[in-house]
Amino acid sequence: MRPDDTAPFERITSPSNPLIKLMKTLHARKGRTETGLFLGEGLRQAMEATEMGRRPAIVLFAPEARARSNARAFLQEALQGGARCVETTPSILQTVSKRDNAQTVVAAYAQSLNPLSDFTGATLIIALQGVRDPGNLGTILRTADAIGADGVALLDQACDPFAVEAVRASMGSLFAVKLARSAFEAFNAWRSEEGLQMIGLSLEGVLGPEAYDAGRPTVLLMGNEQSGLSPDNQAACDALVKLPMKGRADSLNLAVATAVIAYEHWRRRGYEGQRA
Amino acid sequence: MRPDDTAPFERITSPSNPLIKLMKTLHARKGRTETGLFLGEGLRQAMEATEMGRRPAIVLFAPEARARSNARAFLQEALQGGARCVETTPSILQTVSKRDNAQTVVAAYAQSLNPLSDFTGATLIIALQGVRDPGNLGTILRTADAIGADGVALLDQACDPFAVEAVRASMGSLFAVKLARSAFEAFNAWRSEEGLQMIGLSLEGVLGPEAYDAGRPTVLLMGNEQSGLSPDNQAACDALVKLPMKGRADSLNLAVATAVIAYEHWRRRGYEGQRA
Repeated sequence: MRPDDTAPFERITSPSNPLIKLMKTLHARKGRTETGLFLGEGLRQAMEATEMGRRPAIVLFAPEARARSNARAFLQEALQGGARCVETTPSILQTVSKRDNAQTVVAAYAQSLNPLSDFTGATLIIALQGVRDPGNLGTILRTADAIGADGVALLDQACDPFAVEAVRASMGSLFAVKLARSAFEAFNAWRSEEGLQMIGLSLEGVLGPEAYDAGRPTVLLMGNEQSGLSPDNQAACDALVKLPMKGRADSLNLAVATAVIAYEHWRRRGYEGQRA
Repeated sequence: MRPDDTAPFERITSPSNPLIKLMKTLHARKGRTETGLFLGEGLRQAMEATEMGRRPAIVLFAPEARARSNARAFLQEALQGGARCVETTPSILQTVSKRDNAQTVVAAYAQSLNPLSDFTGATLIIALQGVRDPGNLGTILRTADAIGADGVALLDQACDPFAVEAVRASMGSLFAVKLARSAFEAFNAWRSEEGLQMIGLSLEGVLGPEAYDAGRPTVLLMGNEQSGLSPDNQAACDALVKLPMKGRADSLNLAVATAVIAYEHWRRRGYEGQRA
Protein backbone atom coordinates (compact mmCIF):
# COMPACT_ATOMS: atom_id res chain seq x y z
CA MET A 1 0.00 0.00 0.00
CA ARG A 2 2.89 2.37 0.57
CA PRO A 3 4.50 3.33 -2.73
CA ASP A 4 8.18 3.94 -2.63
CA ASP A 5 10.37 5.80 -5.10
CA THR A 6 10.01 3.02 -7.61
CA ALA A 7 6.21 3.25 -7.67
CA PRO A 8 4.97 2.99 -11.22
CA PHE A 9 3.93 6.58 -11.83
CA GLU A 10 4.06 8.07 -15.29
CA ARG A 11 6.38 11.05 -15.67
CA ILE A 12 5.94 14.04 -18.00
CA THR A 13 8.41 16.89 -18.22
CA SER A 14 7.46 18.47 -21.53
CA PRO A 15 5.13 21.48 -21.39
CA SER A 16 3.87 20.57 -24.86
CA ASN A 17 2.71 17.11 -23.84
CA PRO A 18 -0.98 16.70 -24.81
CA LEU A 19 -2.02 15.88 -21.24
CA ILE A 20 -0.45 19.10 -19.94
CA LYS A 21 -2.13 21.03 -22.73
CA LEU A 22 -5.46 19.41 -21.85
CA MET A 23 -5.12 20.39 -18.19
CA LYS A 24 -4.43 24.00 -19.21
CA THR A 25 -7.58 24.13 -21.32
CA LEU A 26 -9.63 23.64 -18.14
CA HIS A 27 -9.18 27.32 -17.30
CA ALA A 28 -11.55 28.16 -20.16
CA ARG A 29 -15.22 27.20 -20.31
CA LYS A 30 -14.66 25.76 -23.79
CA GLY A 31 -12.06 23.33 -22.48
CA ARG A 32 -14.26 22.31 -19.58
CA THR A 33 -17.24 21.78 -21.87
CA GLU A 34 -15.26 19.72 -24.36
CA THR A 35 -13.68 17.47 -21.74
CA GLY A 36 -16.36 17.40 -19.05
CA LEU A 37 -13.58 17.96 -16.53
CA PHE A 38 -12.61 20.69 -14.09
CA LEU A 39 -9.49 21.60 -12.11
CA GLY A 40 -9.00 21.11 -8.41
CA GLU A 41 -5.85 22.46 -6.80
CA GLY A 42 -3.89 21.42 -3.76
CA LEU A 43 -3.29 18.26 -1.82
CA ARG A 44 -5.64 19.16 1.02
CA GLN A 45 -8.60 19.67 -1.31
CA ALA A 46 -7.75 16.48 -3.21
CA MET A 47 -7.66 14.47 0.01
CA GLU A 48 -10.97 15.96 1.15
CA ALA A 49 -12.55 15.16 -2.20
CA THR A 50 -11.37 11.56 -1.84
CA GLU A 51 -12.95 11.38 1.61
CA MET A 52 -16.21 12.52 0.04
CA GLY A 53 -15.92 9.77 -2.55
CA ARG A 54 -14.94 12.05 -5.42
CA ARG A 55 -12.22 10.38 -7.42
CA PRO A 56 -9.98 12.36 -9.73
CA ALA A 57 -9.62 11.44 -13.40
CA ILE A 58 -6.13 12.91 -13.72
CA VAL A 59 -3.57 13.85 -11.08
CA LEU A 60 -0.41 15.85 -11.73
CA PHE A 61 2.04 15.97 -8.85
CA ALA A 62 5.41 17.46 -8.04
CA PRO A 63 8.35 15.22 -7.11
CA GLU A 64 8.17 16.50 -3.51
CA ALA A 65 4.84 14.66 -3.12
CA ARG A 66 6.79 11.40 -2.94
CA ALA A 67 8.38 12.60 0.29
CA ARG A 68 5.04 13.22 2.02
CA SER A 69 3.20 10.24 3.44
CA ASN A 70 -0.28 11.76 3.08
CA ALA A 71 0.47 12.65 -0.54
CA ARG A 72 1.74 9.13 -1.24
CA ALA A 73 -1.39 7.64 0.30
CA PHE A 74 -3.59 9.94 -1.81
CA LEU A 75 -1.71 9.05 -5.00
CA GLN A 76 -1.94 5.37 -4.26
CA GLU A 77 -5.67 5.59 -3.69
CA ALA A 78 -6.16 7.71 -6.80
CA LEU A 79 -4.20 5.20 -8.88
CA GLN A 80 -6.27 2.31 -7.56
CA GLY A 81 -9.40 4.32 -8.30
CA GLY A 82 -8.38 4.48 -11.94
CA ALA A 83 -6.87 7.96 -12.08
CA ARG A 84 -4.03 8.73 -14.44
CA CYS A 85 -1.35 9.88 -11.95
CA VAL A 86 1.54 11.76 -13.49
CA GLU A 87 4.66 13.14 -11.92
CA THR A 88 5.73 16.42 -13.47
CA THR A 89 7.87 19.47 -12.73
CA PRO A 90 7.00 22.32 -10.34
CA SER A 91 7.16 24.80 -13.23
CA ILE A 92 4.66 22.79 -15.28
CA LEU A 93 2.35 22.58 -12.25
CA GLN A 94 2.62 26.33 -11.98
CA THR A 95 1.64 26.87 -15.61
CA VAL A 96 -1.30 24.49 -15.18
CA SER A 97 -2.68 26.19 -12.08
CA LYS A 98 -1.63 29.69 -13.20
CA ARG A 99 -0.76 30.56 -9.64
CA ASP A 100 2.36 32.21 -8.31
CA ASN A 101 2.88 29.57 -5.69
CA ALA A 102 2.67 26.17 -7.29
CA GLN A 103 0.66 23.38 -5.70
CA THR A 104 2.08 19.95 -4.98
CA VAL A 105 -0.97 18.39 -6.57
CA VAL A 106 -3.34 19.54 -9.33
CA ALA A 107 -6.16 17.19 -10.28
CA ALA A 108 -8.94 17.02 -12.86
CA TYR A 109 -12.38 15.74 -11.89
CA ALA A 110 -15.44 14.81 -13.88
CA GLN A 111 -18.09 17.51 -13.65
CA SER A 112 -21.23 16.28 -12.01
CA LEU A 113 -24.50 17.96 -11.16
CA ASN A 114 -27.48 16.66 -9.22
CA PRO A 115 -30.98 16.33 -10.65
CA LEU A 116 -33.63 18.26 -8.70
CA SER A 117 -34.95 14.91 -7.51
CA ASP A 118 -31.84 14.66 -5.29
CA PHE A 119 -33.26 17.60 -3.31
CA THR A 120 -36.38 15.68 -2.29
CA GLY A 121 -37.14 16.16 1.38
CA ALA A 122 -34.99 19.29 1.61
CA THR A 123 -35.63 21.86 4.33
CA LEU A 124 -33.41 24.56 2.82
CA ILE A 125 -32.40 25.19 -0.78
CA ILE A 126 -30.46 28.24 -1.90
CA ALA A 127 -31.49 29.19 -5.44
CA LEU A 128 -29.44 31.63 -7.51
CA GLN A 129 -31.11 33.27 -10.47
CA GLY A 130 -28.50 34.03 -13.14
CA VAL A 131 -25.49 34.39 -10.83
CA ARG A 132 -22.64 35.88 -12.86
CA ASP A 133 -19.49 35.92 -10.78
CA PRO A 134 -17.75 32.56 -10.20
CA GLY A 135 -16.10 33.91 -7.05
CA ASN A 136 -19.50 34.77 -5.59
CA LEU A 137 -20.85 31.36 -6.59
CA GLY A 138 -17.95 29.52 -4.95
CA THR A 139 -18.27 31.62 -1.80
CA ILE A 140 -22.01 30.81 -1.67
CA LEU A 141 -21.25 27.08 -1.99
CA ARG A 142 -18.87 27.41 0.97
CA THR A 143 -21.59 29.13 3.03
CA ALA A 144 -24.24 26.59 1.97
CA ASP A 145 -21.88 23.85 3.14
CA ALA A 146 -21.19 25.59 6.46
CA ILE A 147 -24.87 25.89 7.39
CA GLY A 148 -25.78 22.46 6.04
CA ALA A 149 -28.14 23.63 3.29
CA ASP A 150 -29.62 20.71 1.38
CA GLY A 151 -28.53 22.07 -1.94
CA VAL A 152 -27.85 24.98 -4.27
CA ALA A 153 -29.85 25.47 -7.47
CA LEU A 154 -28.47 27.48 -10.38
CA LEU A 155 -31.38 28.92 -12.31
CA ASP A 156 -31.33 30.01 -15.96
CA GLN A 157 -28.11 31.53 -17.32
CA ALA A 158 -25.58 31.13 -14.52
CA CYS A 159 -21.81 31.31 -14.56
CA ASP A 160 -19.92 28.03 -14.60
CA PRO A 161 -19.68 26.40 -11.14
CA PHE A 162 -16.64 24.49 -12.44
CA ALA A 163 -14.68 27.65 -13.29
CA VAL A 164 -11.34 27.73 -11.47
CA GLU A 165 -12.39 30.86 -9.54
CA ALA A 166 -15.57 29.13 -8.32
CA VAL A 167 -13.74 25.97 -7.27
CA ARG A 168 -11.10 28.03 -5.44
CA ALA A 169 -13.63 30.23 -3.60
CA SER A 170 -15.66 27.16 -2.59
CA MET A 171 -12.65 25.85 -0.64
CA GLY A 172 -13.66 22.27 -1.35
CA SER A 173 -17.37 22.78 -0.75
CA LEU A 174 -18.09 22.20 -4.44
CA PHE A 175 -17.44 18.54 -3.65
CA ALA A 176 -19.69 18.58 -0.58
CA VAL A 177 -22.81 20.51 -1.63
CA LYS A 178 -25.54 19.14 -3.89
CA LEU A 179 -25.71 21.37 -6.93
CA ALA A 180 -28.42 21.43 -9.61
CA ARG A 181 -29.06 23.45 -12.72
CA SER A 182 -32.58 24.22 -13.86
CA ALA A 183 -34.71 26.61 -15.84
CA PHE A 184 -36.58 28.89 -13.47
CA GLU A 185 -40.04 27.63 -14.46
CA ALA A 186 -39.12 23.98 -13.99
CA PHE A 187 -37.55 24.73 -10.63
CA ASN A 188 -40.57 26.71 -9.50
CA ALA A 189 -42.91 23.87 -10.50
CA TRP A 190 -40.71 21.36 -8.67
CA ARG A 191 -40.56 23.33 -5.42
CA SER A 192 -44.35 23.92 -5.47
CA GLU A 193 -44.92 20.21 -5.93
CA GLU A 194 -42.50 19.51 -3.06
CA GLY A 195 -44.27 21.97 -0.80
CA LEU A 196 -41.33 24.34 -0.32
CA GLN A 197 -42.14 27.99 0.19
CA MET A 198 -40.04 30.35 -1.93
CA ILE A 199 -38.71 33.49 -0.24
CA GLY A 200 -37.14 36.02 -2.58
CA LEU A 201 -34.53 38.48 -1.37
CA SER A 202 -35.14 41.76 -3.12
CA LEU A 203 -34.44 45.44 -2.61
CA GLU A 204 -38.11 45.83 -3.52
CA GLY A 205 -39.20 43.57 -0.65
CA VAL A 206 -41.33 45.20 2.00
CA LEU A 207 -40.89 42.55 4.69
CA GLY A 208 -37.97 42.19 7.07
CA PRO A 209 -35.97 38.96 7.27
CA GLU A 210 -38.04 37.76 10.24
CA ALA A 211 -41.41 38.19 8.52
CA TYR A 212 -41.90 34.68 7.09
CA ASP A 213 -42.28 31.29 8.78
CA ALA A 214 -38.76 29.86 8.98
CA GLY A 215 -40.18 26.58 10.29
CA ARG A 216 -41.37 25.56 6.82
CA PRO A 217 -39.20 23.95 4.14
CA THR A 218 -37.81 26.90 2.25
CA VAL A 219 -36.16 28.04 -0.95
CA LEU A 220 -34.17 31.25 -0.53
CA LEU A 221 -34.14 32.84 -3.98
CA MET A 222 -31.43 35.36 -4.85
CA GLY A 223 -31.28 37.58 -7.94
CA ASN A 224 -28.12 38.31 -9.84
CA GLU A 225 -25.39 40.84 -9.09
CA GLN A 226 -26.49 43.50 -11.54
CA SER A 227 -30.26 43.51 -11.64
CA GLY A 228 -31.65 41.47 -8.74
CA LEU A 229 -34.83 39.45 -9.22
CA SER A 230 -36.94 40.07 -12.31
CA PRO A 231 -40.65 40.94 -11.92
CA ASP A 232 -41.52 37.39 -13.06
CA ASN A 233 -39.22 35.82 -10.47
CA GLN A 234 -40.64 38.09 -7.79
CA ALA A 235 -44.21 37.19 -8.74
CA ALA A 236 -43.41 33.50 -8.27
CA CYS A 237 -42.28 34.01 -4.66
CA ASP A 238 -44.46 33.44 -1.59
CA ALA A 239 -42.86 36.46 0.04
CA LEU A 240 -40.26 39.08 -0.80
CA VAL A 241 -37.98 40.14 2.01
CA LYS A 242 -35.20 42.69 2.16
CA LEU A 243 -32.31 43.04 4.53
CA PRO A 244 -32.27 46.13 6.73
CA MET A 245 -29.97 48.90 5.46
CA LYS A 246 -28.77 52.01 7.19
CA GLY A 247 -25.91 53.80 5.47
CA ARG A 248 -25.30 55.11 1.98
CA ALA A 249 -24.85 51.67 0.36
CA ASP A 250 -28.09 50.49 -1.19
CA SER A 251 -27.15 46.85 -1.65
CA LEU A 252 -24.74 44.16 -0.53
CA ASN A 253 -22.38 41.86 -2.34
CA LEU A 254 -24.40 38.82 -3.52
CA ALA A 255 -22.42 36.26 -1.51
CA VAL A 256 -22.71 38.48 1.58
CA ALA A 257 -26.48 38.99 1.19
CA THR A 258 -26.99 35.25 0.68
CA ALA A 259 -25.00 34.44 3.81
CA VAL A 260 -26.80 37.00 5.96
CA ILE A 261 -30.30 35.78 5.02
CA ALA A 262 -29.27 32.11 5.19
CA TYR A 263 -27.71 32.49 8.64
CA GLU A 264 -30.72 34.46 9.83
CA HIS A 265 -32.99 31.67 8.54
CA TRP A 266 -30.91 29.05 10.33
CA ARG A 267 -30.80 31.13 13.53
CA ARG A 268 -34.59 31.24 13.56
CA ARG A 269 -34.53 27.44 13.38
CA GLY A 270 -32.35 27.37 16.51
CA TYR A 271 -29.19 26.60 14.48
CA GLU A 272 -30.53 23.05 14.29
CA GLY A 273 -27.93 20.37 13.75
CA GLN A 274 -24.97 22.63 14.51
CA ARG A 275 -21.68 20.99 15.39
CA ALA A 276 -20.66 21.09 19.03
CA MET B 1 -22.47 76.55 -15.44
CA ARG B 2 -23.30 74.34 -18.38
CA PRO B 3 -20.20 73.64 -20.39
CA ASP B 4 -20.73 73.22 -24.10
CA ASP B 5 -18.47 71.65 -26.69
CA THR B 6 -16.07 74.52 -26.42
CA ALA B 7 -15.53 74.06 -22.69
CA PRO B 8 -11.86 74.48 -21.87
CA PHE B 9 -10.93 70.87 -21.17
CA GLU B 10 -7.45 69.62 -21.82
CA ARG B 11 -7.21 66.83 -24.38
CA ILE B 12 -4.69 63.96 -24.43
CA THR B 13 -4.63 61.28 -27.09
CA SER B 14 -1.13 59.85 -26.69
CA PRO B 15 -0.81 56.70 -24.56
CA SER B 16 2.73 57.76 -23.69
CA ASN B 17 1.68 61.07 -22.17
CA PRO B 18 3.09 61.32 -18.61
CA LEU B 19 -0.38 61.83 -17.08
CA ILE B 20 -1.69 58.64 -18.70
CA LYS B 21 1.40 56.79 -17.52
CA LEU B 22 0.87 58.13 -14.00
CA MET B 23 -2.75 56.94 -13.95
CA LYS B 24 -1.62 53.47 -15.01
CA THR B 25 0.88 53.27 -12.16
CA LEU B 26 -2.04 53.45 -9.70
CA HIS B 27 -2.72 49.75 -10.30
CA ALA B 28 0.45 48.95 -8.35
CA ARG B 29 1.03 49.70 -4.68
CA LYS B 30 4.31 51.37 -5.56
CA GLY B 31 2.55 53.87 -7.82
CA ARG B 32 -0.10 54.57 -5.20
CA THR B 33 2.53 55.07 -2.51
CA GLU B 34 4.63 57.41 -4.63
CA THR B 35 1.71 59.58 -5.72
CA GLY B 36 -0.62 59.31 -2.72
CA LEU B 37 -3.46 58.76 -5.21
CA PHE B 38 -5.84 55.94 -6.05
CA LEU B 39 -8.14 55.10 -8.96
CA GLY B 40 -11.91 55.36 -8.96
CA GLU B 41 -13.82 54.13 -11.96
CA GLY B 42 -17.13 55.08 -13.44
CA LEU B 43 -19.30 58.16 -13.58
CA ARG B 44 -21.76 56.94 -10.98
CA GLN B 45 -19.07 56.39 -8.37
CA ALA B 46 -17.46 59.72 -9.23
CA MET B 47 -20.78 61.52 -8.78
CA GLU B 48 -21.41 59.78 -5.46
CA ALA B 49 -17.93 60.70 -4.26
CA THR B 50 -18.64 64.33 -5.14
CA GLU B 51 -21.87 64.19 -3.12
CA MET B 52 -19.82 62.95 -0.18
CA GLY B 53 -17.44 65.88 -0.58
CA ARG B 54 -14.60 63.87 -2.07
CA ARG B 55 -13.06 65.84 -4.90
CA PRO B 56 -10.95 64.12 -7.54
CA ALA B 57 -7.40 65.29 -8.27
CA ILE B 58 -7.45 64.07 -11.88
CA VAL B 59 -10.35 63.13 -14.15
CA LEU B 60 -9.99 61.36 -17.49
CA PHE B 61 -13.15 61.23 -19.57
CA ALA B 62 -14.29 59.91 -22.91
CA PRO B 63 -15.73 62.27 -25.56
CA GLU B 64 -19.19 60.75 -24.99
CA ALA B 65 -19.24 62.33 -21.53
CA ARG B 66 -19.85 65.69 -23.22
CA ALA B 67 -23.18 64.39 -24.46
CA ARG B 68 -24.44 63.47 -20.99
CA SER B 69 -25.78 66.23 -18.79
CA ASN B 70 -24.89 64.53 -15.50
CA ALA B 71 -21.35 63.90 -16.75
CA ARG B 72 -21.03 67.54 -17.84
CA ALA B 73 -22.22 68.73 -14.44
CA PHE B 74 -19.73 66.43 -12.71
CA LEU B 75 -16.86 67.64 -14.89
CA GLN B 76 -17.75 71.26 -14.33
CA GLU B 77 -17.83 70.77 -10.57
CA ALA B 78 -14.57 68.81 -10.62
CA LEU B 79 -12.90 71.57 -12.65
CA GLN B 80 -14.11 74.24 -10.25
CA GLY B 81 -12.85 72.11 -7.37
CA GLY B 82 -9.36 72.22 -8.84
CA ALA B 83 -9.23 68.85 -10.60
CA ARG B 84 -7.22 68.41 -13.77
CA CYS B 85 -9.98 67.29 -16.18
CA VAL B 86 -8.71 65.69 -19.36
CA GLU B 87 -10.60 64.40 -22.35
CA THR B 88 -9.02 61.29 -23.82
CA THR B 89 -9.87 58.35 -26.06
CA PRO B 90 -11.96 55.30 -25.09
CA SER B 91 -9.00 53.04 -25.80
CA ILE B 92 -6.74 54.98 -23.42
CA LEU B 93 -9.47 54.86 -20.76
CA GLN B 94 -9.56 51.13 -21.25
CA THR B 95 -5.81 50.76 -20.77
CA VAL B 96 -5.99 52.93 -17.64
CA SER B 97 -8.79 50.94 -16.01
CA LYS B 98 -7.60 47.58 -17.44
CA ARG B 99 -11.20 46.54 -17.90
CA ASP B 100 -12.81 45.00 -20.92
CA ASN B 101 -15.62 47.51 -20.91
CA ALA B 102 -14.22 51.00 -20.69
CA GLN B 103 -15.70 53.54 -18.33
CA THR B 104 -16.77 57.01 -19.41
CA VAL B 105 -14.88 58.48 -16.47
CA VAL B 106 -11.79 57.36 -14.56
CA ALA B 107 -10.62 59.58 -11.72
CA ALA B 108 -7.73 59.76 -9.29
CA TYR B 109 -8.32 60.75 -5.68
CA ALA B 110 -6.01 61.62 -2.82
CA GLN B 111 -5.74 58.75 -0.37
CA SER B 112 -7.03 59.68 3.03
CA LEU B 113 -7.38 57.76 6.26
CA ASN B 114 -8.99 58.75 9.52
CA PRO B 115 -7.15 58.97 12.83
CA LEU B 116 -8.63 56.77 15.56
CA SER B 117 -9.83 59.94 17.27
CA ASP B 118 -12.44 60.24 14.48
CA PHE B 119 -14.05 57.09 15.92
CA THR B 120 -14.77 58.77 19.28
CA GLY B 121 -18.28 58.00 20.45
CA ALA B 122 -18.61 54.99 18.14
CA THR B 123 -21.08 52.23 18.94
CA LEU B 124 -19.72 49.75 16.37
CA ILE B 125 -16.24 49.42 14.88
CA ILE B 126 -15.21 46.56 12.61
CA ALA B 127 -11.51 45.80 13.14
CA LEU B 128 -9.59 43.63 10.69
CA GLN B 129 -6.34 42.08 11.86
CA GLY B 130 -3.99 41.63 8.90
CA VAL B 131 -6.65 41.33 6.18
CA ARG B 132 -4.91 40.14 3.00
CA ASP B 133 -7.37 40.15 0.15
CA PRO B 134 -8.36 43.55 -1.28
CA GLY B 135 -11.63 42.10 -2.62
CA ASN B 136 -12.58 40.95 0.87
CA LEU B 137 -11.62 44.33 2.31
CA GLY B 138 -13.72 46.23 -0.25
CA THR B 139 -16.68 43.92 0.33
CA ILE B 140 -16.38 44.50 4.09
CA LEU B 141 -16.37 48.27 3.56
CA ARG B 142 -19.59 47.89 1.53
CA THR B 143 -21.18 45.88 4.37
CA ALA B 144 -19.94 48.33 7.03
CA ASP B 145 -21.55 51.13 5.03
CA ALA B 146 -24.84 49.22 4.65
CA ILE B 147 -25.26 48.63 8.38
CA GLY B 148 -24.01 52.08 9.35
CA ALA B 149 -20.92 50.96 11.27
CA ASP B 150 -19.00 53.90 12.70
CA GLY B 151 -15.76 52.83 11.12
CA VAL B 152 -13.39 50.13 9.95
CA ALA B 153 -9.93 49.74 11.51
CA LEU B 154 -7.11 48.00 9.64
CA LEU B 155 -4.74 46.52 12.18
CA ASP B 156 -1.07 45.68 11.63
CA GLN B 157 -0.05 44.43 8.17
CA ALA B 158 -3.16 44.79 6.03
CA CYS B 159 -3.60 44.84 2.28
CA ASP B 160 -3.99 48.22 0.63
CA PRO B 161 -7.54 49.64 0.92
CA PHE B 162 -6.75 51.81 -2.12
CA ALA B 163 -5.99 48.83 -4.38
CA VAL B 164 -8.21 48.84 -7.46
CA GLU B 165 -9.81 45.52 -6.40
CA ALA B 166 -10.71 46.98 -2.99
CA VAL B 167 -12.16 50.17 -4.45
CA ARG B 168 -14.20 48.16 -6.98
CA ALA B 169 -15.56 45.71 -4.39
CA SER B 170 -16.49 48.56 -2.06
CA MET B 171 -18.88 49.93 -4.71
CA GLY B 172 -18.25 53.48 -3.55
CA SER B 173 -18.34 52.70 0.16
CA LEU B 174 -14.63 53.47 0.46
CA PHE B 175 -15.70 57.12 0.16
CA ALA B 176 -18.44 56.74 2.78
CA VAL B 177 -16.90 54.71 5.59
CA LYS B 178 -14.39 56.05 8.10
CA LEU B 179 -11.23 54.02 7.75
CA ALA B 180 -8.23 53.98 10.09
CA ARG B 181 -4.93 52.13 10.20
CA SER B 182 -3.32 51.23 13.49
CA ALA B 183 -0.95 48.85 15.19
CA PHE B 184 -2.93 46.32 17.19
CA GLU B 185 -1.57 47.44 20.57
CA ALA B 186 -2.35 51.09 19.98
CA PHE B 187 -5.85 50.23 18.79
CA ASN B 188 -6.47 48.00 21.79
CA ALA B 189 -5.33 50.74 24.15
CA TRP B 190 -7.59 53.26 22.39
CA ARG B 191 -10.69 51.10 22.51
CA SER B 192 -10.13 50.29 26.20
CA GLU B 193 -9.81 53.98 26.96
CA GLU B 194 -12.99 54.64 24.98
CA GLY B 195 -14.87 51.94 26.85
CA LEU B 196 -15.59 49.72 23.83
CA GLN B 197 -15.78 46.00 24.46
CA MET B 198 -13.83 43.91 21.95
CA ILE B 199 -15.49 40.76 20.65
CA GLY B 200 -13.23 38.46 18.62
CA LEU B 201 -14.61 36.09 16.03
CA SER B 202 -12.61 32.90 16.20
CA LEU B 203 -13.00 29.26 15.35
CA GLU B 204 -11.59 28.70 18.84
CA GLY B 205 -14.40 30.70 20.42
CA VAL B 206 -16.68 28.78 22.76
CA LEU B 207 -19.55 31.26 22.83
CA GLY B 208 -22.31 31.64 20.26
CA PRO B 209 -22.96 34.97 18.52
CA GLU B 210 -25.70 35.84 21.03
CA ALA B 211 -23.54 35.34 24.11
CA TYR B 212 -22.27 38.89 24.62
CA ASP B 213 -24.08 42.14 25.44
CA ALA B 214 -24.81 43.77 22.08
CA GLY B 215 -26.12 46.86 23.86
CA ARG B 216 -22.59 48.03 24.69
CA PRO B 217 -20.31 49.94 22.31
CA THR B 218 -18.44 47.20 20.49
CA VAL B 219 -15.42 46.37 18.38
CA LEU B 220 -15.92 43.27 16.26
CA LEU B 221 -12.40 41.90 15.69
CA MET B 222 -11.75 39.61 12.74
CA GLY B 223 -8.59 37.60 12.06
CA ASN B 224 -7.06 37.20 8.64
CA GLU B 225 -8.02 34.79 5.88
CA GLN B 226 -5.28 32.25 6.48
CA SER B 227 -4.69 32.03 10.19
CA GLY B 228 -7.51 33.77 12.07
CA LEU B 229 -6.75 35.62 15.30
CA SER B 230 -3.38 35.09 16.97
CA PRO B 231 -3.25 33.99 20.63
CA ASP B 232 -2.21 37.55 21.60
CA ASN B 233 -5.16 39.06 19.72
CA GLN B 234 -7.50 36.56 21.32
CA ALA B 235 -6.15 37.30 24.79
CA ALA B 236 -6.93 41.00 24.31
CA CYS B 237 -10.62 40.32 23.60
CA ASP B 238 -13.40 40.56 26.18
CA ALA B 239 -15.06 37.53 24.59
CA LEU B 240 -14.41 35.13 21.73
CA VAL B 241 -17.43 34.03 19.76
CA LYS B 242 -17.77 31.64 16.87
CA LEU B 243 -20.46 31.30 14.27
CA PRO B 244 -22.47 28.08 14.30
CA MET B 245 -21.35 25.53 11.68
CA LYS B 246 -23.04 22.40 10.51
CA GLY B 247 -21.59 20.87 7.35
CA ARG B 248 -18.14 19.84 6.23
CA ALA B 249 -16.81 23.40 5.79
CA ASP B 250 -14.92 24.52 8.89
CA SER B 251 -14.80 28.22 8.14
CA LEU B 252 -16.38 30.96 6.06
CA ASN B 253 -15.02 33.51 3.65
CA LEU B 254 -13.77 36.50 5.71
CA ALA B 255 -16.16 39.02 4.16
CA VAL B 256 -19.05 36.60 4.70
CA ALA B 257 -18.15 35.89 8.33
CA THR B 258 -17.80 39.63 9.03
CA ALA B 259 -21.20 40.34 7.50
CA VAL B 260 -22.96 37.54 9.39
CA ILE B 261 -21.65 38.61 12.81
CA ALA B 262 -22.15 42.32 12.05
CA TYR B 263 -25.76 41.80 10.92
CA GLU B 264 -26.43 39.59 13.94
CA HIS B 265 -25.02 42.31 16.18
CA TRP B 266 -27.22 44.94 14.52
CA ARG B 267 -30.28 42.66 14.68
CA ARG B 268 -29.81 42.33 18.42
CA ARG B 269 -29.87 46.12 18.61
CA GLY B 270 -33.22 46.11 16.83
CA TYR B 271 -31.69 47.19 13.51
CA GLU B 272 -31.50 50.65 15.04
CA GLY B 273 -31.49 53.52 12.58
CA GLN B 274 -32.48 51.39 9.59
CA ARG B 275 -33.86 53.17 6.54
CA ALA B 276 -37.58 52.89 6.00
